[in-house]
Amino acid sequence: MNTLGRHILAEIYGCNPQTLNDRELIERIMVDSALEAGAEVREVAFHKFSPQGVSGVVVISESHLTIHTWPELGYAAVDVFTCGDRINPWDACNYLTEKFNAKHMTATEVKRGLFDQPVSVKASSL
Amino acid sequence: MNTLGRHILAEIYGCNPQTLNDRELIERIMVDSALEAGAEVREVAFHKFSPQGVSGVVVISESHLTIHTWPELGYAAVDVFTCGDRINPWDACNYLTEKFNAKHMTATEVKRGLFDQPVSVKASSL
Repeated sequence: MNTLGRHILAEIYGCNPQTLNDRELIERIMVDSALEAGAEVREVAFHKFSPQGVSGVVVISESHLTIHTWPELGYAAVDVFTCGDRINPWDACNYLTEKFNAKHMTATEVKRGLFDQPVSVKASSL
Repeated sequence: MNTLGRHILAEIYGCNPQTLNDRELIERIMVDSALEAGAEVREVAFHKFSPQGVSGVVVISESHLTIHTWPELGYAAVDVFTCGDRINPWDACNYLTEKFNAKHMTATEVKRGLFDQPVSVKASSL
């Protein structure tokens, strides 16, 4: 089987609560993690919740990164979905875990887009 | 164990290629699928690729929906991540599958944010 993409679902525990509640900082770390992996950033959208928590996404040419944080639990749910062989989603995931001062991370990699025939991935943009 | 969220990873095959290449239509269908499930839409970001394909995300109070389309393969990779018990991610997923005239869909539901203690979910916003 041929696959179009790799998708990491990361459960990041024991993070710094102040970091997880800082929208601007989370956005910067997420964008930097994408760049660290060599991705091309296309769109960015982040939202701060009351009383706490941040949700956001970075759309990249190679797919996306998302995050949802629960500062009160020190927990962040992170997804890194990349297409093609040029970049490694684990580079972004490991960068985030380090920046959040996480005590514990569990992650699963899921293959996305399964085809019998060979598939090519285009990452060109308008 | 207590969980914060439910995350559906859907592989949608045999979709209408014209639909999958129409950024505005994809954005409308994605937003409508979130509303259909009863979610509260917070941020929207979509991007059209050349020569084809659309990527986008809908950030909702309850987490997010994302999509990446390959019109040339009739394929869309869709994620629907929801927190709390108020809305059902399958409502959005089934709505999308119908709107894309999909011939075949495989999906997996993953639990996100596992804790020993009871966890409450806040969906209030600034």
